[in-house]
Amino acid sequence: MDALLEPRSVAVIGASEDPERIGGRVLDHLRRHFTGTVHPVNPSRDTVQGLAATATVGAIDGPVDLAVIALASVAVPDAARHCADHGVRAAIVISSGFAESGDPAGVALQDELGEIARTSGMRILGPNSMGSVNLTGGVHATFAKLRGFPLDPGGVAIVSQSGAFGLRVFEGALTEGVGVSQLVLTGNEVDLTLGEVAAHLVERDEVTVVALFAEGVRDPGSLLRLGRRAAELGKPVVVLKAGVSAAGSRAALSHTGSLVVGTRAFDAAMEAAGIHTVTTLRDLIAHVKVFAAGRPVRGRRACVLTASGGSGILLADHLAAAGFALPPTSDGLRARVEAVIPSFGAATNPVDYTGQIVNDPGAMPRLLAEVTTSGEYDVVCFTGITRAVPRAVLDAILAASATTDVPFLAWTPQPEIAYETTRAGVPGLLDLQALAQAASGVADAPARRALALRRTTGPAPAAGGEPRPLTEARTKQLLAAHGIPVTREGVATDRDQAIALAGEIGYPVALKISGDWLAHKSDLGGVRLGLADADTVGAVFDELLALAAGTRPDGAGPAGVLVQEMVPPGLELMCGLVRDPVFGPVVTVGAGGVLAEVVGEQHAALAPFDLDHARTLLARVWGGRLLDHPRGLDEPAAAAFAALVRDVAALAAAEPGLVELDLNPVVVTGGRVVAVDAFAVVTSGGATSTGATSTGATEVAGG
Amino acid sequence: MDALLEPRSVAVIGASEDPERIGGRVLDHLRRHFTGTVHPVNPSRDTVQGLAATATVGAIDGPVDLAVIALASVAVPDAARHCADHGVRAAIVISSGFAESGDPAGVALQDELGEIARTSGMRILGPNSMGSVNLTGGVHATFAKLRGFPLDPGGVAIVSQSGAFGLRVFEGALTEGVGVSQLVLTGNEVDLTLGEVAAHLVERDEVTVVALFAEGVRDPGSLLRLGRRAAELGKPVVVLKAGVSAAGSRAALSHTGSLVVGTRAFDAAMEAAGIHTVTTLRDLIAHVKVFAAGRPVRGRRACVLTASGGSGILLADHLAAAGFALPPTSDGLRARVEAVIPSFGAATNPVDYTGQIVNDPGAMPRLLAEVTTSGEYDVVCFTGITRAVPRAVLDAILAASATTDVPFLAWTPQPEIAYETTRAGVPGLLDLQALAQAASGVADAPARRALALRRTTGPAPAAGGEPRPLTEARTKQLLAAHGIPVTREGVATDRDQAIALAGEIGYPVALKISGDWLAHKSDLGGVRLGLADADTVGAVFDELLALAAGTRPDGAGPAGVLVQEMVPPGLELMCGLVRDPVFGPVVTVGAGGVLAEVVGEQHAALAPFDLDHARTLLARVWGGRLLDHPRGLDEPAAAAFAALVRDVAALAAAEPGLVELDLNPVVVTGGRVVAVDAFAVVTSGGATSTGATSTGATEVAGG
Repeated sequence: MDALLEPRSVAVIGASEDPERIGGRVLDHLRRHFTGTVHPVNPSRDTVQGLAATATVGAIDGPVDLAVIALASVAVPDAARHCADHGVRAAIVISSGFAESGDPAGVALQDELGEIARTSGMRILGPNSMGSVNLTGGVHATFAKLRGFPLDPGGVAIVSQSGAFGLRVFEGALTEGVGVSQLVLTGNEVDLTLGEVAAHLVERDEVTVVALFAEGVRDPGSLLRLGRRAAELGKPVVVLKAGVSAAGSRAALSHTGSLVVGTRAFDAAMEAAGIHTVTTLRDLIAHVKVFAAGRPVRGRRACVLTASGGSGILLADHLAAAGFALPPTSDGLRARVEAVIPSFGAATNPVDYTGQIVNDPGAMPRLLAEVTTSGEYDVVCFTGITRAVPRAVLDAILAASATTDVPFLAWTPQPEIAYETTRAGVPGLLDLQALAQAASGVADAPARRALALRRTTGPAPAAGGEPRPLTEARTKQLLAAHGIPVTREGVATDRDQAIALAGEIGYPVALKISGDWLAHKSDLGGVRLGLADADTVGAVFDELLALAAGTRPDGAGPAGVLVQEMVPPGLELMCGLVRDPVFGPVVTVGAGGVLAEVVGEQHAALAPFDLDHARTLLARVWGGRLLDHPRGLDEPAAAAFAALVRDVAALAAAEPGLVELDLNPVVVTGGRVVAVDAFAVVTSGGATSTGATSTGATEVAGG
Repeated sequence: MDALLEPRSVAVIGASEDPERIGGRVLDHLRRHFTGTVHPVNPSRDTVQGLAATATVGAIDGPVDLAVIALASVAVPDAARHCADHGVRAAIVISSGFAESGDPAGVALQDELGEIARTSGMRILGPNSMGSVNLTGGVHATFAKLRGFPLDPGGVAIVSQSGAFGLRVFEGALTEGVGVSQLVLTGNEVDLTLGEVAAHLVERDEVTVVALFAEGVRDPGSLLRLGRRAAELGKPVVVLKAGVSAAGSRAALSHTGSLVVGTRAFDAAMEAAGIHTVTTLRDLIAHVKVFAAGRPVRGRRACVLTASGGSGILLADHLAAAGFALPPTSDGLRARVEAVIPSFGAATNPVDYTGQIVNDPGAMPRLLAEVTTSGEYDVVCFTGITRAVPRAVLDAILAASATTDVPFLAWTPQPEIAYETTRAGVPGLLDLQALAQAASGVADAPARRALALRRTTGPAPAAGGEPRPLTEARTKQLLAAHGIPVTREGVATDRDQAIALAGEIGYPVALKISGDWLAHKSDLGGVRLGLADADTVGAVFDELLALAAGTRPDGAGPAGVLVQEMVPPGLELMCGLVRDPVFGPVVTVGAGGVLAEVVGEQHAALAPFDLDHARTLLARVWGGRLLDHPRGLDEPAAAAFAALVRDVAALAAAEPGLVELDLNPVVVTGGRVVAVDAFAVVTSGGATSTGATSTGATEVAGG
């Protein structure tokens, strides 16, 4: 892939004399910036844009590392094959008219191109790629217009499936002062994918931050590997994924042919891989900008410095919403700040140094020295750094930033000021809210990185086969076999057995109809609670067995009645599992009970994960109140529920045949955490089938 | 107030020769733009900036409508008094050093200024105001630098407490092509407040949209009246309020001395007043921009038109998140679109017309005609309208917009392109997400306006007096007296009475300790459920009465036991009321039960309100799923719960002594909606005291 990023020689196939045409613009860019050799290929001209042209790549004297192909789509496969035959190591196909057209002929051309890549070993970027730019190396192999904004080389690598959108990130970042090393636009990804390109870039010394724009996910494994490797290298990766809505994913599917992946699963998978996710272009650029400054935000104590009360208050609001504390200045610091700011300023937090601070040239440096050396803040945020700010104030801020390792962030609504401060090491954010969210992302980086580094296994492969539901009893047996606490219970197929089970379990008991066709027991009136004695159990058993048998379809398993302990009322939670087709098993937790679906709050993590991460997941439920509120979980219950969640994740990884699992409710009561109802779907190919297909199980499953 | 906005003559008191000094810049602005007469006042010069100066306002020949005072704060009251004495109608005090300094001397000066305004009738803007700009009238009475951005007059009036922030809104709006009529910066608001200034501006013909930035709320009534009047006039008002976080409100309190108001109450009050609320500067400018274009978004069917798959997908995501549907093109429309876009484009929705559409100059006009005349979409959204878009494409979009009443919105990440499209009537939004949210705000405008117009009464005044809790029984009596369904129940003070009550109510019953000091009955073990017969009721009564009596403090009311029907299990909701000190009674609804506080999801509305608005409130619970999900409320239950919520709101308005009310849970079961537990706090001055202080009530309160 180095041939793509750092070629010594480039051929432009379809080179045009006119620098406004596609093949002409690529040549023009290379001619101006590239220090290696450039070979226009054009069968009808001797020279193109003043360079000697050849009719074919084969006619070029000397090796060619990279070919940029700008021909009509029908001519591309032959040209690519010819390149491969003549030892070209990589090709960028900027032509469109392939699979993205939806036209079978285009799909066939793309397949042909894929075959050439596979058989020849020549790597192909595209087709339908806008190209690749290596600002560090001076290789501008793109037909995009690169005018009207600065082109400062720096540490950020940008990889995007969408050309136009990737270019927007590139232009936005550069305009706001972020140095970029590479922009690679992967287009239809017949060979090189987003994850693979990014994984290559992250290894390069000049790359310190990777920004990704994904429409879909073609190669999930490569993204997970990228995240892990980036975590090892300590290089942040930020991804913006489009196609999270139904309409968006419908368009993504037709536009790129990528796999459609659920947002919850994608976010969970990225978290497990240590990759930061954002949902807007604004936040992508803001995160990249703050990461690129290279200064960690070591905690969540933010200080706001402002000359305007209003914007200081608003920034405090945004920082608080992003999870920062804004502790007031200590008494000592407040006194020292009061000594340097005007009397009508404010020395608490936000610190309002007022527009009058310029009247004392030494005041701003002293103020910043006090704040940064106080040890009271992990990040210092400025508001309203506009072109109206006096030069001396701006210089004092930039100079102070160079003398501390406390990160400075500035709200600088004018792009030219953002450019200046960002280049000088103080990220200038155009938007107050984006500043707060990017600061939060950077503060969160060590935890996310640690999670990726702790992760020892990849996603468990799914087993094939036809999915089928398990009864509650069989699901509970599977859970109990993996150490997950379930109700004491057993399935009875005759009255005496039911009464014996009830006696063993202890009164009162619940009875539920049981059969592998019975997904909605309570909707059928098949659940009876609080049965207090043997006579009642016997009578209810007869009634429920008849009900169950009456609904039994031909070919189904036997009808029975589940006899179950009554768990006292308590806090009802749920823990679920779905096996995402792209990323594998995803475990969810949230509110339980009959309203779980209605309430719809669930927090997800890619399985498997450890106890620490299970706790992290619980800490997100109800805005943290599940753990923090006096009526939420106490410490033993939190530990027990976290262990249950971790064990469900381990079960998901261990049982590839388990495609869906729903423990709802999990009741927390009297120091006990227990799955009261449970439901699973397994495939016949899965290992679970052995443990869960014995019929008429009567043993008490656990407690 | 017209003297402030449209003076015929202006005096600048403290006028300076140097246009970079504060008093000099104001004069410089007026000298350049103002068509009336300008009088510099400076006791030490005969001319200032080439204009004849006088030593005092009194020495000016002819009337003075407006004085701008730029003196040291200690000199301001005398100057203001002198102005008032000489018939000056309005003054802008741009000096600082008043209450915002926190210094008692500054507070005293400000009080003196307030007294002058009250006694003289001369209106005062400020002190600590950056001034006022009337672009329509050419009155630039500000010391803010007005350079580096366009100054196009238009329909937007901006009022801000914060000068620097208001100026940022002003510059941002103008830079992005929004025409502004007035910018008024209210500063410390010793006389003119945000709401009062805005209420005046909204009456002016040239004003079509009002944008507000509030740090706190000094005069809530004026904001509510503004909203109502703006609704009558059909002019949208958008407000951004800072100080929503604890840190932000702490700063707002010290910075402006404004009242601190809860975000939930503020948002509820603004909704009731028909005013749109936003939480970021970005969204404020975006909303104002789309409103200023003056074209309604009549529904929630959005069409995305794009040349880039990636940004089209992302915009679809943002629109979906903002509540828009993105219906695919109908078969007929799809065929007509396919006929005009390149074959490798997409004719569904998003419509990808590709960068190649320029090869057919007629294609874009035909495409836009098909989409806008189809009747299939309420808003058409373009992505990636950058400087790279060919002139012909941009012109076709602007021309098509002029021939349809379907609103066009464009994502135009470069401010100069945003300026051009916005001036041409197609709002150009710098941010994809802000585009979607502003479109949603405009689509929501008719409903919000209708709500304001339906509202017949202002907020109920709170009664004074010491707050004290009511027992559950007394709270239920109060509810029942207002037609709100509660459990059948009564308080017993002896055993026979308890048994008699239980018999009347019907077994099983619940018993609860009762006494006006008992806020947390269940924490004391004072609640017993499911008592099945008279003997049990008698025994439990004795036990609970002893428990209640044992905890009774000296001077408290009598101890008793509440005998209550058992309501079968059902869906548990809550309905609460708090009386906000600024806006009055706010009713909340959300999930009920023991976890209500932990879950913490509540939706609020300013009381009173009608049944329709109660339904709107219910439609927000759990993302709409309380009403839409099969396990949520069915239609009769929704109607009954909405009526209950409406009745609680009416009760809050009718009973000024009711400061807090909590119906939790309200149980929905078997076609019945009933408040099972309830708790109120009343003040002794309130009318509620009469209805709820009779002791030992034994009647069955309702059912």
